[in-house]
Amino acid sequence: MNSIVTLTTDFGLYDPFVGIMKGVMLGINPAIQFIDISHQIEPYNIIQAYYILNFSYKYFPSGTIHVSVVDPGVGSTRRAILVESKDCCFVGPDNGIFSFIFTLSPFTSKERDGLRVIELTETKFFLPSVSHTFHGRDIFASVAAHLTRGVNPLEFGKPIHNPVTLNIPEPDIQEGKIRGEVIYIDRFGNLITNVSARYFYLLKGEGKEFKQILLKNLIINPPCKSYSDAEDLKPSSLFNSCGFLEIFIKNSNASIELGVKKGERLAIITIDKIG
Amino acid sequence: MNSIVTLTTDFGLYDPFVGIMKGVMLGINPAIQFIDISHQIEPYNIIQAYYILNFSYKYFPSGTIHVSVVDPGVGSTRRAILVESKDCCFVGPDNGIFSFIFTLSPFTSKERDGLRVIELTETKFFLPSVSHTFHGRDIFASVAAHLTRGVNPLEFGKPIHNPVTLNIPEPDIQEGKIRGEVIYIDRFGNLITNVSARYFYLLKGEGKEFKQILLKNLIINPPCKSYSDAEDLKPSSLFNSCGFLEIFIKNSNASIELGVKKGERLAIITIDKIG
Amino acid sequence: MNSIVTLTTDFGLYDPFVGIMKGVMLGINPAIQFIDISHQIEPYNIIQAYYILNFSYKYFPSGTIHVSVVDPGVGSTRRAILVESKDCCFVGPDNGIFSFIFTLSPFTSKERDGLRVIELTETKFFLPSVSHTFHGRDIFASVAAHLTRGVNPLEFGKPIHNPVTLNIPEPDIQEGKIRGEVIYIDRFGNLITNVSARYFYLLKGEGKEFKQILLKNLIINPPCKSYSDAEDLKPSSLFNSCGFLEIFIKNSNASIELGVKKGERLAIITIDKIG
Repeated sequence: MNSIVTLTTDFGLYDPFVGIMKGVMLGINPAIQFIDISHQIEPYNIIQAYYILNFSYKYFPSGTIHVSVVDPGVGSTRRAILVESKDCCFVGPDNGIFSFIFTLSPFTSKERDGLRVIELTETKFFLPSVSHTFHGRDIFASVAAHLTRGVNPLEFGKPIHNPVTLNIPEPDIQEGKIRGEVIYIDRFGNLITNVSARYFYLLKGEGKEFKQILLKNLIINPPCKSYSDAEDLKPSSLFNSCGFLEIFIKNSNASIELGVKKGERLAIITIDKIG
Repeated sequence: MNSIVTLTTDFGLYDPFVGIMKGVMLGINPAIQFIDISHQIEPYNIIQAYYILNFSYKYFPSGTIHVSVVDPGVGSTRRAILVESKDCCFVGPDNGIFSFIFTLSPFTSKERDGLRVIELTETKFFLPSVSHTFHGRDIFASVAAHLTRGVNPLEFGKPIHNPVTLNIPEPDIQEGKIRGEVIYIDRFGNLITNVSARYFYLLKGEGKEFKQILLKNLIINPPCKSYSDAEDLKPSSLFNSCGFLEIFIKNSNASIELGVKKGERLAIITIDKIG
Repeated sequence: MNSIVTLTTDFGLYDPFVGIMKGVMLGINPAIQFIDISHQIEPYNIIQAYYILNFSYKYFPSGTIHVSVVDPGVGSTRRAILVESKDCCFVGPDNGIFSFIFTLSPFTSKERDGLRVIELTETKFFLPSVSHTFHGRDIFASVAAHLTRGVNPLEFGKPIHNPVTLNIPEPDIQEGKIRGEVIYIDRFGNLITNVSARYFYLLKGEGKEFKQILLKNLIINPPCKSYSDAEDLKPSSLFNSCGFLEIFIKNSNASIELGVKKGERLAIITIDKIG
């Protein structure tokens, strides 16, 4: 472990909840370096937190501890967990928020190595009085801070083998066609889809030429290299910095201009090259 | 003192004011660990800052310095103060923002131990040129940074005995009835009232059974344990993680759904148990 | 160099982009102290970032590295640069965002001492794979982190002598009259103009008395000392904490009340003193 703790929550930046969590952690280990990934997750939106953390965690140094609290089930029987992977740890509710790390997909199986999920039951690592409404403070902050001090993950509880896994929409690949959807819209209004470059090029491997991305009533050209390569005003596409197909309008807000929200379906079709 | 400085302001996150204050402090002590509690206080809303800091400060380690700048009177004759309590220090304007710490209420008298309020007059601890508009930068940041370096609080000025104290609405307890009000609404739309569990149970001590919380034209059931214990869609109540009665709607926004804003009055009445 | 890195971007606080940049930097130097100046720059608004950074950088200790990413040209042929000044470094796109530091104006010529602009070409200091869409992560974060470790600026590339310089509106000074404009509006709705106190007093030096600031159809009195010196409800002026003429309404939002936006022109005229 190092002393880096990242935070991803739906607490916003108006209330003192994030500050309180940091105060609790500093009381246990004053050397922690905090990095806020996002506190602007929509209230209760576990899937959005899943995507944001999945896009981010790989960029942190080995030994980083990622605390994520989007926790509509706080106070219920949902478990509290610590996920230990080869390179980092995750601490938060067992509601699928970290399930990108234990999803067995064609592209992520390698990441299962060294994976362990531990249910947090050892109350000596919690705050002395645990509320029914703020486990971010009373359990997750406290456990993460003890982790940074070198407590062995197994001291926090016993391994479990059935963590909650989110049902994340995967693209549907058919003969000459991929059906996907918009899974995330960023501040710039760019539309990030669930079609990774790997899927895209699998299709290309069939010997046809990609021609068209269909979104609403638009036909969008195949990916260009960068935002600045696109024509002004024209809906365009590229593979973004996380490797996913993204629809954008250069120097504009595609979500607003095209009226597209999360969940919008799109298709990528191949048309035989003429010539 | 340790090297932790928290910040609570109405500066927002758009302008560079908070960053500038941190730059000033790092110039005096590069080892400071900053924790942002909130910078989204409504402009000039001293009472909101009071509540947020009061909810938060107890969770920070001993020796933490809390800087708070909501300062509509900057440049006037309002004093600048340092409040030294047993466990931590507060630095900011003398406008009542820290007055939770020196309010003598039935429940807080213990906290008066070791309390001292010092007027900041020793200009050698300020920036060389003090503006009339940004004491957060020129006085409070500079003083807080010197405090982290171990300067004795008495070196900053002389003790005063009449700091400004806010007139905070306290619940009104009558025979079989508490009248309180909504004092804070969090990001989730939960309605936090000024009725602490201690007040609530004082009433219970009269041998009656609590039955009803009256808010607008609603009758709300007595507190359940956690958000997830409540029924969907139904206005419910619990004691929140700070010990205050809170009205909420499970997985929804009570403030929006019920049209309730800060200042809304509520009553808790007891009805004799039948049986 | 010290280990302080400031960040100024248009990435917002909703997406994980800022957190990802910090993760990358911590992987290179875990001792970095990050200070967020603002991530709420309007998307693609280079001039706003220019002002915010220009207002801020002077308050940071010597050796601070300022990373700024407002980068509509990412992936195009626009260069990546490191600006080395006497006291600090700037890292980001060559789009004028740092050009306050190399603008030769009557008042800033001293700052040219020790100034050097280096084009970032040495790819060994970039992430192994550089995307076409997120140089903040792949180039600027990585370079800044290496800088904090003491890499000599000249190792990152060769000096250039034609960095992009923004065409910033300067006030127009005529006989007995200054024409300026509103260049920035802060969270409180205060209207910051490009008329610095130095320009203002140059005019005063002509032996006349300043009488009137003309904005829209308003006549505003000469600067008072502080916000609290002003009359309630009345549009007023002062020199703000950065030395610029600012129009405000005490405890209110001048931008909303007066319907003034960035770019609004104003004039300062002198009228002979009677008596």
